[in-house]
Amino acid sequence: MIMPEERLKQLGIELPAAPKPLGSYIPLVRTGNLIFLSGMLPLVEGKLTREGRVGEKVTIDEAREDAKQSAINALSILKSHLGSLNRVRKCIKITGYIASASDFIGQPDVLNAASDFMFEIFGEVGKHARAAVGVNVLPLNSPVELEFIFEVS
Amino acid sequence: MIMPEERLKQLGIELPAAPKPLGSYIPLVRTGNLIFLSGMLPLVEGKLTREGRVGEKVTIDEAREDAKQSAINALSILKSHLGSLNRVRKCIKITGYIASASDFIGQPDVLNAASDFMFEIFGEVGKHARAAVGVNVLPLNSPVELEFIFEVS
Amino acid sequence: MIMPEERLKQLGIELPAAPKPLGSYIPLVRTGNLIFLSGMLPLVEGKLTREGRVGEKVTIDEAREDAKQSAINALSILKSHLGSLNRVRKCIKITGYIASASDFIGQPDVLNAASDFMFEIFGEVGKHARAAVGVNVLPLNSPVELEFIFEVS
Repeated sequence: MIMPEERLKQLGIELPAAPKPLGSYIPLVRTGNLIFLSGMLPLVEGKLTREGRVGEKVTIDEAREDAKQSAINALSILKSHLGSLNRVRKCIKITGYIASASDFIGQPDVLNAASDFMFEIFGEVGKHARAAVGVNVLPLNSPVELEFIFEVS
Repeated sequence: MIMPEERLKQLGIELPAAPKPLGSYIPLVRTGNLIFLSGMLPLVEGKLTREGRVGEKVTIDEAREDAKQSAINALSILKSHLGSLNRVRKCIKITGYIASASDFIGQPDVLNAASDFMFEIFGEVGKHARAAVGVNVLPLNSPVELEFIFEVS
Repeated sequence: MIMPEERLKQLGIELPAAPKPLGSYIPLVRTGNLIFLSGMLPLVEGKLTREGRVGEKVTIDEAREDAKQSAINALSILKSHLGSLNRVRKCIKITGYIASASDFIGQPDVLNAASDFMFEIFGEVGKHARAAVGVNVLPLNSPVELEFIFEVS
């Protein structure tokens, strides 16, 4: 069985301070054993890694980095609530919105970087249902925004 | 502890008749203690407050009014199901879709009007997780559409 | 009480093999009595029925067929997990993303084809909450993508 806290250490990933929400809401709500996270952006120290649409200013590889960064930010929020990621029982669902040029159709490729990362950290527990959606524009001109639902013990 | 029914009265807000769905579905489904609402539009007496994209025909201030109106409509549906809003235990999640000019990036500002309203009515119980998403067009040419998940007792 | 397996037979609908996910994720996750499905596309034998935006290359009637096909694919995944659709207790929520020309506002009409189909197969159990959302582009250039949440026994 994979222990996500140990996996993060092995991979040399240090979780950043949980990013602050951009408005009058909270980063995470728990109901029963389910946790709903707010939309995660690829913020590093409070700033977007980059701006723009995939297929225009942003390349697929850059957007994949952004998807992974959004997932790292999700884990930092989750850990600040749970104390330890070892208490995650399941990653239930990721909905990934990708700011897309109107002819960019590789949203699943972008989102795979987040999905692969979840599997890398959590193993079987990280296997989730998923929807990849293209949109014309996201908050702050972010290339990527991810929603997460987790089950915890 | 805030009693939402009393707060509505203090603020002079009268909930309208629950808006009718636009298709072959229902406004609200309960599963266990969770309630999922259908996408809420800023309808007043069955008509949209206005049409168009934010950043084009619609201003931020107008869109903020629309976000609040969509939240009022959500409460009217919730109340028609529960009898009293005092039975709401938690606002879990709002996903807000904002019809956006391709260079409009203030979706969180728009959605804050709905988030602030939920806090005004429910207090701590109204603090929710949230995602703000820009899209090119919404049903009926609405500027705003909101999804809600609530926990009830 | 309607038995969905019998309804499918009466209507002459044969569920296809469950479509494969397009990335590193799984088609369905269960948590308690809830089932979250991955985003469903109108794939037939692994290929999209058609490509493009509604209001441009794709007509409303074609998009309605695509919405129904996406729902059929959802049922095939659900059945492959449950053994029998008769174990479905409720269709909770459908979120339908419609790739839309920027002046196409009939997303609810498109999604009605999926909603009507759910009612046809499940009766009252199939009545769900719903959100219809227009977007500029979807994975693989699909006209339609549907998310489902079900309750099972």
